[in-house]
Amino acid sequence: MARIEFARGVAEEVIPDVRLTRAPDGSDGTATFYFDHPKALSEDEGVEITGMYMVDEEGEISTREVKGKFIDGKPAGIEVLYVMKDEMEWERFMRFMNRYAEQNGLGFTKS
Amino acid sequence: MARIEFARGVAEEVIPDVRLTRAPDGSDGTATFYFDHPKALSEDEGVEITGMYMVDEEGEISTREVKGKFIDGKPAGIEVLYVMKDEMEWERFMRFMNRYAEQNGLGFTKS
Repeated sequence: MARIEFARGVAEEVIPDVRLTRAPDGSDGTATFYFDHPKALSEDEGVEITGMYMVDEEGEISTREVKGKFIDGKPAGIEVLYVMKDEMEWERFMRFMNRYAEQNGLGFTKS
Repeated sequence: MARIEFARGVAEEVIPDVRLTRAPDGSDGTATFYFDHPKALSEDEGVEITGMYMVDEEGEISTREVKGKFIDGKPAGIEVLYVMKDEMEWERFMRFMNRYAEQNGLGFTKS
């Protein structure tokens, strides 16, 4: 079970779009997640967001680069940046992403 | 170098959207590619389409389930179905897809 959490133990139900970039030499890369009106921001079920945690059978990877997007003063989305600094981090992230994509019916698209 | 060809030796330059489905028990899955106005259909550089070939450092995987889409009688796109029958085929395909996505800046999105 691959899942994303904004507070530990609470799985986010909204499925993000994920844009990827990678340096041509493979040295570093980024993944930018966008969650449109995630449950973590909802009035009823909102949580105190402490980071974004990607959890799967291998363990957890996380980032603290989480930004809220507001429209007319109301929470509209969450944008998250995850930076990978070498080949090993990229491969670990892709193993998580493939599990998460498979479970949630994500496809690939030009970003 | 991961690439897609519609005729052997001719890399398609247009990047597709790819939708994935998989049986909950992992037994089989599908990938559906859509190429909007691919080079393979163009008047100048069109090729005789014999299938879709996914080529990378491990070798080649291919499918013959290739359909043209026509709008007002003019070629508009190509839709391709690739069926995976077991876990091994799924994993081989995902290794290709990850390489192809990385090279071409594909991201993940809800399909």
